[in-house]
Amino acid sequence: MSVASPPHTWPRRHLLNIDGMTRAEVEACLDLAVEMREWRERGERPEPLRNETVGLAFYEASTRTRVSFELAARALGAIVIDLSLAGSSVAKGESLIDTLRTLRRTGVTICVLRHASSGAPHLAARETGLRIVNAGDGTHAHPTQALLDALTLRDALGALDGRKVAIVGDIAHSRVARSNLHLLPMLGAQVWLAGPPAFVRGFDDWPGVHVATIEETLDGADAVMTLRLQLERDAGAGVPSLREYTWRWGLTSERMLLARPDAPVLHPGPTNEGVEITAELAASGRSLIGRQVENGVPVRMAVLALVAGAA
Amino acid sequence: MSVASPPHTWPRRHLLNIDGMTRAEVEACLDLAVEMREWRERGERPEPLRNETVGLAFYEASTRTRVSFELAARALGAIVIDLSLAGSSVAKGESLIDTLRTLRRTGVTICVLRHASSGAPHLAARETGLRIVNAGDGTHAHPTQALLDALTLRDALGALDGRKVAIVGDIAHSRVARSNLHLLPMLGAQVWLAGPPAFVRGFDDWPGVHVATIEETLDGADAVMTLRLQLERDAGAGVPSLREYTWRWGLTSERMLLARPDAPVLHPGPTNEGVEITAELAASGRSLIGRQVENGVPVRMAVLALVAGAA
Amino acid sequence: MSVASPPHTWPRRHLLNIDGMTRAEVEACLDLAVEMREWRERGERPEPLRNETVGLAFYEASTRTRVSFELAARALGAIVIDLSLAGSSVAKGESLIDTLRTLRRTGVTICVLRHASSGAPHLAARETGLRIVNAGDGTHAHPTQALLDALTLRDALGALDGRKVAIVGDIAHSRVARSNLHLLPMLGAQVWLAGPPAFVRGFDDWPGVHVATIEETLDGADAVMTLRLQLERDAGAGVPSLREYTWRWGLTSERMLLARPDAPVLHPGPTNEGVEITAELAASGRSLIGRQVENGVPVRMAVLALVAGAA
Repeated sequence: MSVASPPHTWPRRHLLNIDGMTRAEVEACLDLAVEMREWRERGERPEPLRNETVGLAFYEASTRTRVSFELAARALGAIVIDLSLAGSSVAKGESLIDTLRTLRRTGVTICVLRHASSGAPHLAARETGLRIVNAGDGTHAHPTQALLDALTLRDALGALDGRKVAIVGDIAHSRVARSNLHLLPMLGAQVWLAGPPAFVRGFDDWPGVHVATIEETLDGADAVMTLRLQLERDAGAGVPSLREYTWRWGLTSERMLLARPDAPVLHPGPTNEGVEITAELAASGRSLIGRQVENGVPVRMAVLALVAGAA
Repeated sequence: MSVASPPHTWPRRHLLNIDGMTRAEVEACLDLAVEMREWRERGERPEPLRNETVGLAFYEASTRTRVSFELAARALGAIVIDLSLAGSSVAKGESLIDTLRTLRRTGVTICVLRHASSGAPHLAARETGLRIVNAGDGTHAHPTQALLDALTLRDALGALDGRKVAIVGDIAHSRVARSNLHLLPMLGAQVWLAGPPAFVRGFDDWPGVHVATIEETLDGADAVMTLRLQLERDAGAGVPSLREYTWRWGLTSERMLLARPDAPVLHPGPTNEGVEITAELAASGRSLIGRQVENGVPVRMAVLALVAGAA
Repeated sequence: MSVASPPHTWPRRHLLNIDGMTRAEVEACLDLAVEMREWRERGERPEPLRNETVGLAFYEASTRTRVSFELAARALGAIVIDLSLAGSSVAKGESLIDTLRTLRRTGVTICVLRHASSGAPHLAARETGLRIVNAGDGTHAHPTQALLDALTLRDALGALDGRKVAIVGDIAHSRVARSNLHLLPMLGAQVWLAGPPAFVRGFDDWPGVHVATIEETLDGADAVMTLRLQLERDAGAGVPSLREYTWRWGLTSERMLLARPDAPVLHPGPTNEGVEITAELAASGRSLIGRQVENGVPVRMAVLALVAGAA
């Protein structure tokens, strides 16, 4: 699972996963994202990627992540090519690697890749000559989401050293959770997990990670992140009913009384309101869900600039 | 049906429908469109929307309208993001409002929205913080089409005060007709309608609108607009056969002899030639169908600039 | 088949096929492509198409060709509109010509058209007022592919006068081959064809073209081009089995011993490795497949600039 790529793959050419990064690299990236956010707020467009061509290769549809990367790349002055691969018959008879090599030959320099197969971005990084940014691969990693979560937490809490962060839900199938399990302990946080046994089993082996009951996990937490229940996938898979899931693990304002006062709530979106989180809590003042989306663009600007060697 | 939005929604933030506008606002918009048209003809690109990001959220496919808005936004210097929502599985499990709020958070400032549900743009304007331009909602409104129709008529006829404009066809299901029924009387025109009873019933209650036979409607008309017969929808719905429709309400050069000499013909496109209009008439010198398309871009430039507060 | 368009259609307004061009025009185009390639290598963006709007109208999906044209147009400073027509329900009830006329009215000036019907670009050139670049029509022509093949051959061999070029495979159904059968003899090359009888029948009538056995065709060849076997189309159509095809006409390093030492190998891509060419040969030092892709963008830049009258 871990260390699928050597540490030197970042910041030189790729962002494949969090566990290839050092803490110093992560912090440099978050600091750069803050700077990018300030550029945007001031309406500046310095265009450091003016000579780069960014290809968006989304083999799985994702309006949210694709738009965030597209705006990030364009804010930096890059030419952006949307390959519109999801759902098309495009790649018929042509492998991922052949398609990406062709892109490289046409002049694409950086490829933002989302793919249903875990490890596809690593393969692409090794075989194509493109600089690869992983925008989510299978159940493996979603490093830019973890970085934007970390930035959002840092904005709210300051440094994460010694902080307790609770994550509730389907850890096992979540690439977001998996990337956070690398990133948050690296930044000094204690991560506590809760969820149905099939969703959390085995994770107490990870450094800095604890698996516990929902009550223990929330107890005194400095921040709480809940995950999207993949309704279409999980139904009937030996998993509790929706009703039971919500009753036992759903986040509510009442349940949040266990955490520290005003501890913020995060969710990678889109939410199933009334399932893993109540609509009331998602819309409350302690919800950082909107801030997570807002931080997506500057974090991706920072990542693209680092991968391009332009920062 | 009418006045679904208060007048103050324009020109401050949105273009939702015509009936929220005053005559002075409409005329300012048409005058600005003329100015935009001259910019384009001179090849100028002043880029007043350089700091805006326009999202194209077409939940119904429409190459024609989408391209027109995209070119308008880009001619003004905006960053344009095409969400490619129609036919995709994108919005699965995520509501319109959640998707649009996410766009707002990523930095989209203006959203051009087409949606099959009447009222969706009003909801979006109320709930998302985006500036909304309605690019067609259900059978409710298509205000930019009505504005470009009005500009095309004004180009041909001068001021519309006291002019008789005939509209023939399926008024009841046409958002284009509905927006014109607000706009043309506002500009002083008399609007006469003709079509199968199921298509025109009830419209003689509207101010400045008359329902009559095809002969009365065309008699002395200063301009004639015919509408696309929605073949896929209308067949068999208690409606006359195609053959009968064409025989009784189809526009021909002969039938146009009832109107004033050289009275122009309009159609929102695409036409079913040989059904609601003959190919010969659509291609004749009195057809303004091509001019309507040409006016689409400058009218949408004007609307985007007004909504952005940049004009 | 030949001379479907008069010679004067190029370089003034369109690139429809090779046989409408003179040798001097072809050579001017290739020379311009070399210049464009040098611009790109130096990172220059002179933007001669800054006032043009290029519409990409791909009625058949093709990531590879579409991306190549999009990057070419953007490198020249044009506004590019992707119509995303393939697989959509967009053109429902609207003819190709109506759609393209509408584009022209919205301000699109150059249309890159791919269509399943042979002759569609000629029709579009005659009927729409757009400047048309044929990006592949049915089994008829794919002139920019032939131009990039010629540039790649010229890069490798110098002038093609008196050179022997072998083409192996399904000539009859290949628009790429057909355009090469016009272009290579025009540049002075001798073209030899080999393949199953149904795929090569009738082509020995063409000037400068010979049909022969695979051995005769490869014998002493200065360059060898093999074509994609259209697996989805050809299976069972009175054609040899895949296994027999590969055994009799597949390119291997051994079979290439018949050609001149180091004679290069070309393929328009994507390859079916192990069918018409071995993976080993496709990846070898004599393969120009990658160079063909690389030359696609500067060749299309040259074509767009010539069509726009900007070069």
